[in-house]
Amino acid sequence: MRDDTYHCPIEVAMEVLGGRWTTVVLGHLKDAPRRYSDLRRLIPDISDKVLTQRLQDLEDEGIVTRVEIEAPGRRVEYSLSPVGRSLEPALQALYDWGVGWAELHRLQIEPIGR
Amino acid sequence: MRDDTYHCPIEVAMEVLGGRWTTVVLGHLKDAPRRYSDLRRLIPDISDKVLTQRLQDLEDEGIVTRVEIEAPGRRVEYSLSPVGRSLEPALQALYDWGVGWAELHRLQIEPIGR
Repeated sequence: MRDDTYHCPIEVAMEVLGGRWTTVVLGHLKDAPRRYSDLRRLIPDISDKVLTQRLQDLEDEGIVTRVEIEAPGRRVEYSLSPVGRSLEPALQALYDWGVGWAELHRLQIEPIGR
Repeated sequence: MRDDTYHCPIEVAMEVLGGRWTTVVLGHLKDAPRRYSDLRRLIPDISDKVLTQRLQDLEDEGIVTRVEIEAPGRRVEYSLSPVGRSLEPALQALYDWGVGWAELHRLQIEPIGR
């Protein structure tokens, strides 16, 4: 976070969301809590290094919550925190616009099945 | 635009919107058509090089329209194209979230007067 003054709220939002893959990770967490391995599978083009860094950043910022579940075989799930949930309208709007833009430009989107 | 397959519409949207300052420029064009000098004033931290590049990219992508107005003293105005207008819900959602995030973290936002 910068110390100096911002001049537009969108500037603030994009400082949090602008990192490569950040919004894609959040979009998948919007749908459901996910394990690291789920995210890795749903976002095949992300590297482990970047995914790990993004999750750490988002946890540090209080947007993503990391929960250790004591099932037989410990597992860790990531989900949106309440502050992260407040991003849902923005994530949905970006999703919807991406659908339209892909149609317009005949871009292939192949979602990964759960 | 990449040739390969995308796996999520948000990935598509952020490829267009993810460049530094891109959404901030669009946010100001959402409010009104602007001259280059307006944008330069409204976004004091952007460089001429980056603003010029962003406007060119957005024009090439058909999101921003550049209009030469034959007033006494020719002037050029930038505005959102119809496709650019379809970004309004996303830009508004980012704006709203930025306001909330700035309040939460006591970040200063000082909009520039028109």
